[in-house]
Amino acid sequence: MSTQLPPSDRSRVRRGADLAHYDAAVVRAIIDDSYLCHVAFHDDAGVRCIPMACWREDDHLLIHGSNGSSMVRHLAAGAQACVTITHLDGLVLARSAFNHSMNYRSVVIHGCFEVVPAERKAELLDLFMDHIAPGRRHTARPGDASELAATTLLRMPLGDAAAKVRTGAPEDKEEDLGRDVWAGVLPIGVLRGAPLPDGLQRGEAPSYVRSWAGAGA
Amino acid sequence: MSTQLPPSDRSRVRRGADLAHYDAAVVRAIIDDSYLCHVAFHDDAGVRCIPMACWREDDHLLIHGSNGSSMVRHLAAGAQACVTITHLDGLVLARSAFNHSMNYRSVVIHGCFEVVPAERKAELLDLFMDHIAPGRRHTARPGDASELAATTLLRMPLGDAAAKVRTGAPEDKEEDLGRDVWAGVLPIGVLRGAPLPDGLQRGEAPSYVRSWAGAGA
Repeated sequence: MSTQLPPSDRSRVRRGADLAHYDAAVVRAIIDDSYLCHVAFHDDAGVRCIPMACWREDDHLLIHGSNGSSMVRHLAAGAQACVTITHLDGLVLARSAFNHSMNYRSVVIHGCFEVVPAERKAELLDLFMDHIAPGRRHTARPGDASELAATTLLRMPLGDAAAKVRTGAPEDKEEDLGRDVWAGVLPIGVLRGAPLPDGLQRGEAPSYVRSWAGAGA
Repeated sequence: MSTQLPPSDRSRVRRGADLAHYDAAVVRAIIDDSYLCHVAFHDDAGVRCIPMACWREDDHLLIHGSNGSSMVRHLAAGAQACVTITHLDGLVLARSAFNHSMNYRSVVIHGCFEVVPAERKAELLDLFMDHIAPGRRHTARPGDASELAATTLLRMPLGDAAAKVRTGAPEDKEEDLGRDVWAGVLPIGVLRGAPLPDGLQRGEAPSYVRSWAGAGA
């Protein structure tokens, strides 16, 4: 079931508003297609924007980091933040330079992170592992007490989020359509390369490794 | 010739400092491999983080936007900003959950944008076209006076930038090496899909279209 997000003044898309989506299902799908997000916040040194691994549980985006990270401590203290995820899907070549564009799916989430209670850490790190490599959580050694204690999990609600999606062909002005120049889309996707075992394996690779290589999200 | 950037207190990498690079050539290469960046800044509504197309001229990162964009106006007025570019190169699967990682190349640039003088706009938009599709600037219709006038070009110096790069295999603890679990890297790259002409072309596709499809940066 999908729900419609009520965008705040902060989240409402103003430029290219026809490309905006406030449907929670669209927001969730863009997050689930990503392994990382960019987290922006403001500290004593000014605005910072840091790439972080991310995953999702229901209507929260999750990140994790070392307790010792100044970023983690700042976000844990309730700093206002903005999280952005962008998938570039293609270069859009129009007949005029001005009408060139890109196809993409992005989501911008405003809010504050909160620290995930200690008793939920192990379960949510398993969920992260499911996002990275489904099935692996049953084979890799789980975090021990000191590893879990050294890690902070932070989550941000998706309540104030907006997606923006461009798809399809270039939009040329009528008077440019007769120009003798190639117009269309150069698609961009994710290439999954052949897995690189570290050389110490025994036995067969698991299914998430065997099925990795090829095009995919 | 490469130069060493003197990182400010703001730019110096603290977490994973062994992965940091302050070599201008590394910073430039990460920018040149990207079509977009994330621009973070602070306005009346708080911190924002917006994906923007980007390109580079010498030691400046360039973005462009409509004069009417509140973001463009805010950055043009000299707001402090942080620009981040991240390439995800692989998922790093270790034998313990805690030692999982990602291979990536990122650059974080701190500073303020400045408006590019009007007389340089056309030349720098040509450079942007070279970044997107080399050779195309000679065939697509260039921006006319009103299109150029409606566009603001902004540039940020690369003087206060730091790159962070992780490559290679997982790093397991000695006591985990005997575990019977697959360990290694699942590589991620860019897939260039088959070009999608918009159906109105005449003649042969240009070389940057014909050579597009396949794996590449």
